[in-house]
Parts: sequence; structure tokens; C-alpha cells
Amino acid sequence: MLRYLTSGESHGKGLYVILEGLPAGWELGEEDINRALSRRQKGFGRGERMRKIEKDRVEISSGLRWGETLGSPLALVIPNKDWVNWRKLMSLEEKDINERAFVTRPRPGHADLAGGIKYGRKDLRDILERASARETAARVAVGAVCKKLLKEFNITIYSFTNEIGGIRSRPPEYKNEQALKSADKSLVRCLDSRAEKRIIKAIEKAAREGDSLGGVFTVLAKGVPVGLGNHIQWDRKLDGMLARALMSIQGIKGVEVGKGFEISRKKGSQTHDEILYSTSRGFYRRTNNAGGIEGGISNGEDIVLRSAMKPIPSLARPLKSVDIRTKQAFLAEVVRSDVCAVPAAGIVGEAVVAFEIARAMREKFGGDNLDEMKENFRAYRERVKKY
Amino acid sequence: MLRYLTSGESHGKGLYVILEGLPAGWELGEEDINRALSRRQKGFGRGERMRKIEKDRVEISSGLRWGETLGSPLALVIPNKDWVNWRKLMSLEEKDINERAFVTRPRPGHADLAGGIKYGRKDLRDILERASARETAARVAVGAVCKKLLKEFNITIYSFTNEIGGIRSRPPEYKNEQALKSADKSLVRCLDSRAEKRIIKAIEKAAREGDSLGGVFTVLAKGVPVGLGNHIQWDRKLDGMLARALMSIQGIKGVEVGKGFEISRKKGSQTHDEILYSTSRGFYRRTNNAGGIEGGISNGEDIVLRSAMKPIPSLARPLKSVDIRTKQAFLAEVVRSDVCAVPAAGIVGEAVVAFEIARAMREKFGGDNLDEMKENFRAYRERVKKY
Amino acid sequence: MLRYLTSGESHGKGLYVILEGLPAGWELGEEDINRALSRRQKGFGRGERMRKIEKDRVEISSGLRWGETLGSPLALVIPNKDWVNWRKLMSLEEKDINERAFVTRPRPGHADLAGGIKYGRKDLRDILERASARETAARVAVGAVCKKLLKEFNITIYSFTNEIGGIRSRPPEYKNEQALKSADKSLVRCLDSRAEKRIIKAIEKAAREGDSLGGVFTVLAKGVPVGLGNHIQWDRKLDGMLARALMSIQGIKGVEVGKGFEISRKKGSQTHDEILYSTSRGFYRRTNNAGGIEGGISNGEDIVLRSAMKPIPSLARPLKSVDIRTKQAFLAEVVRSDVCAVPAAGIVGEAVVAFEIARAMREKFGGDNLDEMKENFRAYRERVKKY
Amino acid sequence: MLRYLTSGESHGKGLYVILEGLPAGWELGEEDINRALSRRQKGFGRGERMRKIEKDRVEISSGLRWGETLGSPLALVIPNKDWVNWRKLMSLEEKDINERAFVTRPRPGHADLAGGIKYGRKDLRDILERASARETAARVAVGAVCKKLLKEFNITIYSFTNEIGGIRSRPPEYKNEQALKSADKSLVRCLDSRAEKRIIKAIEKAAREGDSLGGVFTVLAKGVPVGLGNHIQWDRKLDGMLARALMSIQGIKGVEVGKGFEISRKKGSQTHDEILYSTSRGFYRRTNNAGGIEGGISNGEDIVLRSAMKPIPSLARPLKSVDIRTKQAFLAEVVRSDVCAVPAAGIVGEAVVAFEIARAMREKFGGDNLDEMKENFRAYRERVKKY
Repeated sequence: MLRYLTSGESHGKGLYVILEGLPAGWELGEEDINRALSRRQKGFGRGERMRKIEKDRVEISSGLRWGETLGSPLALVIPNKDWVNWRKLMSLEEKDINERAFVTRPRPGHADLAGGIKYGRKDLRDILERASARETAARVAVGAVCKKLLKEFNITIYSFTNEIGGIRSRPPEYKNEQALKSADKSLVRCLDSRAEKRIIKAIEKAAREGDSLGGVFTVLAKGVPVGLGNHIQWDRKLDGMLARALMSIQGIKGVEVGKGFEISRKKGSQTHDEILYSTSRGFYRRTNNAGGIEGGISNGEDIVLRSAMKPIPSLARPLKSVDIRTKQAFLAEVVRSDVCAVPAAGIVGEAVVAFEIARAMREKFGGDNLDEMKENFRAYRERVKKY
Repeated sequence: MLRYLTSGESHGKGLYVILEGLPAGWELGEEDINRALSRRQKGFGRGERMRKIEKDRVEISSGLRWGETLGSPLALVIPNKDWVNWRKLMSLEEKDINERAFVTRPRPGHADLAGGIKYGRKDLRDILERASARETAARVAVGAVCKKLLKEFNITIYSFTNEIGGIRSRPPEYKNEQALKSADKSLVRCLDSRAEKRIIKAIEKAAREGDSLGGVFTVLAKGVPVGLGNHIQWDRKLDGMLARALMSIQGIKGVEVGKGFEISRKKGSQTHDEILYSTSRGFYRRTNNAGGIEGGISNGEDIVLRSAMKPIPSLARPLKSVDIRTKQAFLAEVVRSDVCAVPAAGIVGEAVVAFEIARAMREKFGGDNLDEMKENFRAYRERVKKY
Repeated sequence: MLRYLTSGESHGKGLYVILEGLPAGWELGEEDINRALSRRQKGFGRGERMRKIEKDRVEISSGLRWGETLGSPLALVIPNKDWVNWRKLMSLEEKDINERAFVTRPRPGHADLAGGIKYGRKDLRDILERASARETAARVAVGAVCKKLLKEFNITIYSFTNEIGGIRSRPPEYKNEQALKSADKSLVRCLDSRAEKRIIKAIEKAAREGDSLGGVFTVLAKGVPVGLGNHIQWDRKLDGMLARALMSIQGIKGVEVGKGFEISRKKGSQTHDEILYSTSRGFYRRTNNAGGIEGGISNGEDIVLRSAMKPIPSLARPLKSVDIRTKQAFLAEVVRSDVCAVPAAGIVGEAVVAFEIARAMREKFGGDNLDEMKENFRAYRERVKKY
Repeated sequence: MLRYLTSGESHGKGLYVILEGLPAGWELGEEDINRALSRRQKGFGRGERMRKIEKDRVEISSGLRWGETLGSPLALVIPNKDWVNWRKLMSLEEKDINERAFVTRPRPGHADLAGGIKYGRKDLRDILERASARETAARVAVGAVCKKLLKEFNITIYSFTNEIGGIRSRPPEYKNEQALKSADKSLVRCLDSRAEKRIIKAIEKAAREGDSLGGVFTVLAKGVPVGLGNHIQWDRKLDGMLARALMSIQGIKGVEVGKGFEISRKKGSQTHDEILYSTSRGFYRRTNNAGGIEGGISNGEDIVLRSAMKPIPSLARPLKSVDIRTKQAFLAEVVRSDVCAVPAAGIVGEAVVAFEIARAMREKFGGDNLDEMKENFRAYRERVKKY
């Protein structure tokens, strides 16, 4: 049973993760995770803070020995490099509370007000620190570990930007892995260079206007075997698990599997992925409208997931809000630096998808070390061929 | 901890549910559930079977006494009225297997092939019987119970059809509950009578052509208090839970919270719901782009969720597939009767949303009987006012 | 992920179970379960009701086809043969409440009072019906299914009575499976015929005196492979899981693994099971003080668990209690028939242990049908040999 | 939903915990936890290491601000003060493996061999580091937090030693809280000074002989309200949850609720706790054989739990084992220092019991900050009085 919890406030000492249920006996190192953390921090449209804290770096603090997993839980720590500047405001112990430092002005579009009411907090910093998208760094760390594991089974997770600010990019050819790999070379993780240019301009314009942009990104999992997830219970379907994982990312307001909303406008005769067979490939499809999942089960095709991210709250038109202490209206004057976080969100998307697929792999193939898990996997592959 | 499991094959003896974690001490009866089951079976575009099995009726078989909940688990049974005709083909005991009766021709767009391979079944009926949307009747039963409970807290769940076959209907005014209630009066659960007519014609046309249509529906939860769900962990966010619940419904390929994909194309300055305050209403909003959830927490506004349903596989253009036994290609000649299941899917959507909201209510307000839960709820409401 | 829920009141329509996560493709029939249900109902010292409802019989209502598991959830129904006599008092719908029929006199030693207060019930029947040990029939059904599955892996679960009313029987030789199998031949499931006679006399005496007896029983799992459970997290240790399962049986107040309390009185030098090795047997032990579990992991030896059952509340000395309505003291005049339920409790113990071991097997070996699971199991066995 | 995970190897960088689901708004500090950690390290019979690493000290690394809980997850870190000496042998990254340093000699009574086989490890240090009782420090930290929370509801958890090496101490009067509090003043946490002296002598003797001793300890929870846990499902009964928690502690082989095994030897007429009532106290009991739990539900009396701990493996008679590499027999020459860990185990017992009771409290009373939870609690108390 693969599972994880994260903790940590945005400007606290750091982010903490416990990730458990991995097989023993495969190589893992901090660099495997650091690369992913660094990918999350890139992207045109990110602001000051990303530069300031420069590079997140993880410390794997348990669960490894001599560079190898032990099967015991991993503790991952991502220290906040800026902690020295927050020691007072985010002090864990200090009880000398200065009410003037309270955040009492909830930002529309954030957990501030709902969280403040739910938890009965008078300083909204108590909420926003944990609700912040900073937490996704922890999930990216989890995902990097899972991706490394999946690599052993030739499963690869890609992501790229579909649109930003309504500017759509031509969808890439999914079979072209070289193209998919190149997403990171684009400042906005867009695989269509013409759209990329327009998007960059749109981001620059939004930046000048003090505005922000959202967008859509795709996460793609290649090499997933047929048979992950299941059809037998509502809470164990692979598409449901993936939708939960993606929708739980900060700022995500929509999730699609395969052709998603588009296919709901097609006729049945145009919709479904015909089944073909050849002795070399076994069963396969020519189309993949279903996005690799039928009846809650992976069908062996690429798993294709799209997510919609809302724009980060902005200042172009200062937003009305109400001070929770005085009940006076005010215009939200949030000091903001990020203009667009969609490129980063794609990296987070890869991470949460990697976790869910790794979890389903663990459930189907069992085993307590990598060799055992691989042997079970290979035997299943043989069965599938003979089916 | 509210939880449920369902079981039962589509043409088996019936569907079975255990639903647990409800408070004791409130009235519940089979009619509360039967009404919902009947709503699921309606809708223009449903085929023969819906008429044949006429009306699903539930038997509440445990957990009630003298018309009141006991706090113990409910067992819900929905007998298959057509069982007599399936006793042989779906026999649970009989071992006299006739291989000619095997379903060996997987239908594209269904769990048939992926499930057959995963579970190693040679008769695909072994998969399709459980993967069938028939199972949603069980979830509707669960949802009907949850809706009855939520009613005690003035929480109401509505649903309506947004589009079918690409024909969009004008969105209703969400404040107009009378309008929302009238969805069931429409044959296609559409609140815009002009669109309704066009949709009905489209369904009739598709029926003539042996084709099928998908669509989009909205589920709306009104009266949800601020503070359900939370922002503290990825797997406990209300939007994530709701996305999992909706995406797990048969045929659903996309889920949106609030404005969803649309908002990803807007600017930040056009996006977020400004916060207002009046002594009578407390904090409130004029817009609800967020769909009632910010940071994974309900914010007191209507919870608005949209789901995209793919068209049911159809015969207009017979789909290519491959016989799993002979590996010969064939053209899928599925005998089909439903043309469009979107109206029914909205009812299922209400059900799964009702369950998730009830679960979040149980977690926040605790209590073991309704009076206790209500008292905790009222006290919280008072706190919210004073916040 | 193997899981199950039960529902049903003692004198309601029946007991209902959903059991999920079994592999597909193995034979199962109602008789496999009925045999176990019948074993639960035997035993010297059982009273009128056991005879009256004669024989529990299960209906497998979903999850099977043509005598084989499908991988989909099993619905198990055990109808209450006496329901006709309880239709009015246990009516699910009827609202014509007769307060004189209320049970207002809580029995010491039962959930009556604590449950009545917790759930706010004025008729304690609303609690006692679900708290009753009748519910264990549902767990026995679950266990019978799991035992059948385990049989495929040459894992067998036995149980026998250690003591009743303080009369201890000589412990059997665990290697003698013939002896273990003979427990059911004893009226009190005791493997020492001299003790058996004394126990029967003690039960007869208690019956005459209107008293009741408790006792201790052992559950033994043979053939469990090394490596079930784990040492990495508190809530996943095999001994912890087994302890929860056994302690949750009605009337159980103590659980031991291996030598349990006895070993806590020994010296370290007398305690631990030395490790031996031979090429034919691999690693093995001569003693099994640990009861087959070290560090939360099965070590390949017999899993040995002992449970202490309190005597059923009795009438020999009428117990003082207080009417919840009048607050008047009274002497509990429970009409009781069972004198000793220890033999039956052993059967329930087998069931819950079988479930936990099956769950751990599912987790370690994965797979979705029996062949796949077996193949993974065999490959692991080979690895173990080469270790 | 209160939940926690721990991670960390015995000689690794430290132990890590994420604890989640606590209400916001109450004071907590590292000293609250440090006191408990220090209690775990005391006790006559502990060896060199306990002295060497002197005092465990926790760092609360997230979830607090200005000394108050935020409702977000706590990260707890207990650095290994001895890490500097283990950096090489327990290096997380270094791949320069020296096979001569491998632990290849499994110790009877530990997870070494079963874990090595399960996870396929050739260096048994990879197993024993996580299986070590060192991990209980993490659980003690969790328990200390829970105890602080429970204190707000006047629930107190005590523990004391019942027996060590078979030497039993007179049970204390549970009503005498002063006596219960004094357990820490005893070197062996024994409340009977005559037994204490004999126990100390026995430990000294065992130490001289290179042997070790186990024992029995009691955990007692006072002030627990009636109505925690429930009777409705096997996996949610309070006694089952507590049994799992206690049995999962390293070295525990038996758990009893109330009179446990002893009561299984009594007659029914001597067993059950009669129910009394007075207007001032409400319902109460004069005896507490049930240990405060009836039907899986707390009944308002003290919760009394006893656990049996096996002696730590010893050297008095070197134990036979087999080298996993050479398959040669050897005599286990473990360098050991602890003679008896029972006093420490009692502290761990308090911790895991505190967690389970806090979890049940969170489930029953809900709420997201302490005030809300308390208000719900108070309202329930009023209901109970009027019942």
C-alpha cells in the first residue's frame, strides 16, 4: 500500500514528506528528486520568490542506505532556504504576538476566508501558509521517487502546456517521445513554437498590466500496462483516483481523461477506439479518445489527462474584499510576482499521476523488493501476450 | 466515518449496498430511495430495458427500525426484476458451461477487453456485468439516503443537463430554486425549453441513425456551510473528493469545479470572486466562478460541478474489434437501445455529490444521532456569524 | 485490497456482507460457507435459539458466475429464519411505536447502556440488535471464503478450545494436523478428552445454576509463508492486525501471540526461537514461542493466537442495573439460554484470522486472478529457497 | 481524521513523524513532547545507549505558529544525537559497500530473518534498523501531543508496571490518581515498593547473568467519556483499535482489556459490572472488570489495558542461529545492554492509547479548532446527563 503525507508551511522551516510502501532494492538519490524540484521552479512567468529561494534541494532523511531503498518509509525534507527571514513571523514557539502583523484581509480565490472561518483563526496567515502552492514541491518530490520506480517498468510520465491565457498550442504527436521530452526546453513548456511565442508575449503583457494568466496542461503516461485500476468499486477506479490527484493541485478547476469534454459533443460512432490485433503487438488501438482508460482500467494505450488551471489572483483590477477584524471593505493589494504558474503545474501534474500509477502498480504486482515486483510484472506481461 | 460499498452484476440477482456511518434517529423509508431510483430510469433516449424492468425498487434490509435510522449499517437491496430471464446465463452455482454462450467480442469504449485481460477471463460477460452502468442504481440509492440527511441541514442537491450532442442550453439562474427543481419536468432534464426541443430532435435523429449522444450536466449543492473539506492534505480536499466521485461514474470523462476550463482562459482580474459583507448575510460573494470551493474548502456559496459524459457506444458505424478467442476482426454488432444517458447521469451525479458532502458533514460535525449532529451544526453556524 | 463490511440486526431480516478484493477464477459455492456457518452453531452449551433457527444458510448473491469468482465483490446474505416472528418488533417501516415494548433495562456486560447513550436511543433494542454476537455469523461467512482461497496456497486455519471455566486442557501437538482436525468432533472443541469431560460437567453445572462460563481458545494458521505483514509502520504489522481482528469479536477481552503473557515471565535465554537450517527445509525453528510472528512479520512457523472470552452474562446472581426511563434499580432477569459460547468463538476466530492472512497474501502477491496470484506466490517461494 | 506515519532508522539521521487531523488553536510546545521522550528513556535496566544518546529532543518543524496549533499537519523530528558515529555505516548515499560490514547473522526473536527474506536483503542491518524499538520514540512523540489535547477534556493516561520477570506487584487503587502519578518515581515504574525492590534485584541478577527480563504493564485512561468507539462494525470497535495499537509495539505479545484472561476463568455471575445510578453521578459502576469498554464502546469507566512484553533477546545462553550467507550455524553473540525495557514500554503504551482515544474523540466530536470541539463535547456531556 503506497501512501504519503506531506506537511510544512510555505514560509516555515521546510516541507516534510513521509512516503511509504515502496519496494526495497533499487537505487535512489537526492539528485533524482532535485532535478524534478528544479523543473517545478522554472517556467516563464514565475516571480521573485522562485529566484530568491533559488533552488529547492531535498534531503532524503530515512528509508535509504548506501543509495538503495530499504522498503522502509522515506522521509523527505525540503528546507526553506529563506527561513532565516521568517523566523520571527513564522516562529513555532515564540508567543509574543503582535496583532498588527496579523493578516486580516482574505484574498478572493484563496483558502484564506473559508479556512479562517473553518479553523477559527484570526490571523489568516495561519491558513494561507499551508494552503499555498509551495506545498506542491513536496508532491513533486514524491512524484520524482515514483517516476524513478516506474522507469524500471518502462513507464514514463510526460507533461506539456496546451494553452495559456486562451492561446492554444497545436497538440503534439504523442508517439514522438523526442518531442514530448523537449517540453522542458520551452520557457512555457509548450511544444508548438509559434504558440510558445504568442504565449510569452501574452505573459509579458499580463505582467505589465499587473494581471495573471491560467491555462491547460496535459500529463501523459506512456508504457502503462493494461490492467491497472479496476471496474469493481467506485473508489478504486483509475480515472477517479487520477482525477482526485489532479484536482487537489492548487489552482486546478477542471480535469479531463482523454478527449474529455470534447468527446461529449461527438456522436457515438465517432467516439470509441476500435480494437485491433496483430501477433507482434497483441491488441492495440489506432485512436485513443478514451485516454488510455476504459471502465476504470488502463487499457495499455497512453494515459492522457488534461487539467485546467485558473489564473493566480492578480492586481490589474484590485479585488474587493473585507477585513475580517473590522468588517471594512478594502481593495486587495496583494504583492504578487508570479504571472503564470501553468508550466510549473504541469510538473506537479506529472508527480501526482506518477504516484497514482505507482500505487496501482504496487497493488497489482505486489512484491517487497524490485526484483520480485519485476518478476511478477514480467510474468503478467507473458500472460497478456497469450490472452 | 461515512463509507459504502456496492456489489452486484447487471443481470444478476440484484444490487447490494452497505452504507455505514450515518447518525441515528431520523426518519428514512424505502420511498425516499425509490423516488430517486425512478428519477434515474427516466429521460428521453433510454431504451427498451429501462421500460422492461420498469421500476427499480429498493429494500432497506437493515439499519432501520420503526422507520428510523439506528446508527447501524444500512443494507440496501435492489432486486433485478428481470432475474428470472437470466437465471441460467448468470447462474451463480451452475457449472454446466456452454462455451458458445461466451461473450468473446470486446466492445470498444467499455471495460470488456482491459478487464478481460486483467482478470484473465475468457467470457467477457464476467467483466461487463459488473462494469455496466446498472451499478449506478446502487449509488443513487446511497445518494438518496445522503440527500435525505442533508435536507435536515437545509442542504439541497440539484442537477440539470447543460448540453447533449453539442447542443448547449442557456444556463439557469442558480438562485432560482424553482427553476432548478423543474429539471425533472424536462424529458432531457434541460432548463432551457428551446434547447430542450433541439436536443430531443437530435436524440431522435441519432436514434434513427443508430447512433448515440453524450453531453454535459451540472450538479449543484445549495446551502453547504462554509468549512467542509480542508486545505491541509492532498487527499482530503473537497474538490478532489468530488472529482473522484464524479469521474468514477460510468462514461464520465471530464469534471469541472465552478467555471472550470473556461476560467483557465480568463485573466486573473476577471476570475476571482470578490468578498463582500453585510451584517445580515455575513461574508458573501456576488460571483461564484470558484464553484463554491476555494483551497479545497467549501466557501459557503453554491457548489457547482460539471461533468462530461461520452456517448454510449453505438452502431451507426459498426466499430472494429477483435474476437479474443479467434483473434479475428469483426464489426461490433452490439444490440443497443439507449441513445443518450445524460439525463440519468445527472441523477447519479447528484447521488455521488450528496455522499461526499454528507461525508464531509459527518467529519466536521461528528455526533452519533441527528440531534447531536444538528446541535453541533447550529453552534458552528453561530460561530461563523460571529467570526 | 481485500476489505469487507457487514450489516444486519440480530432479529432483523438477515445479515448482509460485501466482501471485495478477491482474485477471479476459483471455485466457490454456498456449501463452502454453509459448512462454516454450521460449525459456528454447534458446541455444547448453546441454547434454544441455536436449535430454533436450526441452520444458517448463506446466499451468495453476487460476485460469482457458474461457480467461479469474477473478481467483483461478493454479496453474502444470511436470512434470519426466525424473521417471521420478529416482523413486528423489528419492523423496518412500521411507525406505530409501543413504548411498553421498549427495552429500557440495560444488561451489564453488553453495549446496551453505552450504546444507548452514545446514539441517544430510548429503546435499547436499537443497540443490542446490532451489538449481538449474531453478527459473527457474517464474519464466519467472510472467513469461509478466505479459508477456501488460502487452501489454494496450502494455508490451513485451525482452532480449538484451551480452557473453559478455568479447566485447562492439555495443549495438542501442533504438528499433528490429524489431531487439530478432530476439534470439531469434540462437543466443546477440546483436544484433550479428559479435560473435555470435566468441561462438559462444568457447563452442565453452570446450566443448572443459571450461570455461564467463558474460556480461552487458540487459532492456528499452518503453511503461512514467511514475509506477510511488515515491520515498517505501526498500523501494518501482522500481529497488530490480528489482534484487532480477534479483540473485535464479541466477548473477547484478551489476545496473545505465541506464548503471550507466559513468555513475559520467562528469561530472555529461555524465550527466543533458535534459527536452524537444512538444505531441504531451509531456515526453520525447533520452538515457536513467538507464535510465528517476529517484528510484525510472519516467519514461516505456525501462527498461534490465543483469545480469552468472558462468560456470557448470567442469572445465577441476578445483576443489578437501572432502568434508563425510570432510573429505578432492578435485578436483571435476562432470559438466557447459552451457557458457554467458547466453542463457537473459536470458529469466529478462525474466520477473522483467515481474513487477515488472506488480506496480507493479497497485498504481498497481488494479481487479479488465482493463476496470477499463484504464479507470483510460486516465484516467491523459489526466491525464499535461494535466499 | 487523526492519522500519523513515522519513519527513520534506528541509527539513521533521526526519526520523522507527520501527525495530522488535530484541531487548531491550542498551545503546544517542544517541551510537552520532550518530557515524554525523556520518560521513555528512563527505567532501571536500560543500557549504555540510552545514556550515550542522553536525551532525545524533538523539533516541531511544522503545524505550529506562535506556540499554537494551526490545524495543519505537525512534522516532528527527533534527531539521532549519535548520527556522527554512524554516518558511514548508515550513509544514505555512499555506494562503496563493504560486504564485511554486512550483518548476516539473524537474531532469534527479531525481524531480522523474516524481514531479510521478505525484502530480499543480504545485509540484515537494512531490516533491523527500522524494526528496532528505537522507532517507539516517534510514537511517544505522537502520544505526547495527543495527551496534551486530551488534557483539555480532562482525560488523563497513566501507566505502570504490573510485573517484571514474573514478580508481580500489588495492583494500585485506580481511584488514587496520586498513586498513579507516582509511577515515574519508581525506577521500574512499579507502584508497590516491596515488589519494586524484588524486581530491581531480579534485574540486577539478570544483568550479571547476561540475561534479560520481560513483564506486564498497564495503561489506564481516566476521564474518557461514555460513547467512544462503536459496536456497528468489526474494524471500528474501540477495543480492537487499542489492541492493534498495543500489539504493534515492539516486543508485545499479549493484550488484555479489563480483567482479560483472568475473567475468562470466572463465572458469569462474578463477571459483569453492575449498573448503578445516582442523580449526581448519573450511571456508574462499582466494579470495572470490563476495563471501561462494553460492546466496543467506552462506558465511562476507566479504560484499563494490560500488555505482555517478552524479554529482550539475551546472551545468558547464546542462541543458535544460522549465517544467511554461509548457512553456517553460529551462537548469537549480540552485544546487548538493555536488560529490561518494560518500564519504557509502559510509556510507549500510554502514547499509542492516547492516540487511539484522541482519534475516537475527533471522530465523535468533530470540530476544527479546540473551542468548537470543546463546545461539542460540553453539549454531549449535557445530553448524557439528561439521558
